[in-house]
Amino acid sequence: MNSSKAVGLADVAREAGVSLATASRALNSAYGVSAATRERVAEVARRLEYVASPDASRLATGATRTVALVVPHIDRWYFGEMVNGLEEVLRQAGHDVLLYHVGDPGGRHAFFEHLPARRKVDAIVVVAVPVTEHERRRLELMGVTIVAAGGQDATYPYVSVDDATAVRQATEHLLRLGHRRIATITAVDPDRADQPARHGRTRGFYEAMAAAGVPVDEDLVVTTTWGGVQAAEAMERLLSARTFPTAVLAHSDEMALGAMRTIRRAGLRVPEDISVVGIDDHPLAELVDLTTVRQPVREQGTRTALLLLALLRGEQPDPAQKLPTRVVVRATTAAVPAQEHSPAHPAARRTRH
Amino acid sequence: MNSSKAVGLADVAREAGVSLATASRALNSAYGVSAATRERVAEVARRLEYVASPDASRLATGATRTVALVVPHIDRWYFGEMVNGLEEVLRQAGHDVLLYHVGDPGGRHAFFEHLPARRKVDAIVVVAVPVTEHERRRLELMGVTIVAAGGQDATYPYVSVDDATAVRQATEHLLRLGHRRIATITAVDPDRADQPARHGRTRGFYEAMAAAGVPVDEDLVVTTTWGGVQAAEAMERLLSARTFPTAVLAHSDEMALGAMRTIRRAGLRVPEDISVVGIDDHPLAELVDLTTVRQPVREQGTRTALLLLALLRGEQPDPAQKLPTRVVVRATTAAVPAQEHSPAHPAARRTRH
Repeated sequence: MNSSKAVGLADVAREAGVSLATASRALNSAYGVSAATRERVAEVARRLEYVASPDASRLATGATRTVALVVPHIDRWYFGEMVNGLEEVLRQAGHDVLLYHVGDPGGRHAFFEHLPARRKVDAIVVVAVPVTEHERRRLELMGVTIVAAGGQDATYPYVSVDDATAVRQATEHLLRLGHRRIATITAVDPDRADQPARHGRTRGFYEAMAAAGVPVDEDLVVTTTWGGVQAAEAMERLLSARTFPTAVLAHSDEMALGAMRTIRRAGLRVPEDISVVGIDDHPLAELVDLTTVRQPVREQGTRTALLLLALLRGEQPDPAQKLPTRVVVRATTAAVPAQEHSPAHPAARRTRH
Repeated sequence: MNSSKAVGLADVAREAGVSLATASRALNSAYGVSAATRERVAEVARRLEYVASPDASRLATGATRTVALVVPHIDRWYFGEMVNGLEEVLRQAGHDVLLYHVGDPGGRHAFFEHLPARRKVDAIVVVAVPVTEHERRRLELMGVTIVAAGGQDATYPYVSVDDATAVRQATEHLLRLGHRRIATITAVDPDRADQPARHGRTRGFYEAMAAAGVPVDEDLVVTTTWGGVQAAEAMERLLSARTFPTAVLAHSDEMALGAMRTIRRAGLRVPEDISVVGIDDHPLAELVDLTTVRQPVREQGTRTALLLLALLRGEQPDPAQKLPTRVVVRATTAAVPAQEHSPAHPAARRTRH
């Protein structure tokens, strides 16, 4: 091999029979590359006398001391709290944090097409962003370590909660209270049309109902996009369903608050007429006495940062870490009223006030 | 002058009879330096053949294309929404955003002592952080442009709302509904012991009451730190005050929710027994039908970013921009009940439920 001609990463990739992205990941000890591939790429790199460019070397050794956070919806508590945890640990480890907000489709497209963090960071943390296949390929062009905070689709090493378990816990709480006609307001991400219909949170509901031998009334399953106002509208649909629910499970606390607004405006009471349970334990849930399933959000951030730092040190941490969730019982759920065991539709109640 | 010896910024400052920070600001067209000083420093710099070091030059020309955001409490909607607005405008202008979270005292101290953003940024945005005199001096050592988003103490050019006006609007809304025994839960920042007792929001309450000729009952003025749980505790004190309030004004929506929890748990109704009004128009205020004073938070972020970009271009934008606030009437405020014009203490009501 003529070593006077600069050997590029592309040469290594071609010779090793892998993609450019895989070659980059293999040489950077990134996740998702088998030990065999990593060894083969390393062997080829040695044989071709491949020397990483100063930029690549700087990236590989972590010399930028900077990490990019890719975050949608920074104005929502969940994402802000994630960033809080991530920033604290990264800062204490001497890293700077570059923030890339990808809240709207335009900003998101621009980020993945222009890769503004390229050559500026040692690593990327995607914060609960469902990354498409195309976006994944774009990110990997940067050749840096990538982890996910709050995601769990195994594209990257991650720290998360188990969404299905969280919803199963909420459903089981309602079942224990005697509820059978349980409605659920399920959330989908408008950015992710390819998401399976029964993904994490939705799946947990069906699993818990099946385990209890309670049939799911499909009229009581409504789907909407994330958001309290959307959930308020979904609750209107539920109140006009043929079957009247005695309980509602919403995919987030914000959505539970939206459902409660519709129930309140219809002249019905929570929990006397309808129990409501959310997911998250948003700080305001405590103030509105909302029963919910608590997920440790800040800790997902700190643990993801620790996972990332371990990867940057070349260690082999557990790449799929799930933190526990638990039901927090407050005042919006109660035992199903005795008369509710009859299938009567309590429409008259709506005009009570 | 011996031009073979490197002339430093300190030489320029000494010769011009100004501090190092002022010399830096003058040469960087930063805010807070008079035109006369700026000219004198520039004249001295020319005479001494002062050449900015590569680092300083990079800073002066904005060549890092990076801005530091110094943000406390990123997990709270207000701060996240500010960052949202700031990031969007800075990103579109081609700047990267370094995030420095100064939520806890330790992180805050570390940030101002170590100045981790030094030499990495063209500018600093302090996001609603009350900067102490010591911290101000530390920041100015960096010699870059500094602006404030959501602050209004005139330390730096800023975009904000007028806190006193917002609270005056809330108070006037209650006065128009016939309320006279108006309680207020006022918030203080625990990081800022030097804040005047009747700062912005508190002052607005006294001004509106005085303008209406309604005496303030000091038993109905309680002070606490920012937060919903703190406000819930403050509301307990108000419910045991000698005078029973017919309305409560809280310094934020989160605090209003805390007050409402105490009222609800005491078996009293909102607004029938007590009206409640907040400040902010937090996204969840709409879901709990809370009457509030809306402040445009995201726009404070975008406008602050535009202000900063104008300063970096050497323009002279308005350095004290205030955005309007307005009352949003929802379901937690109502006309004072007729019987409430008697001074009777409705303690019996508390056992209603």
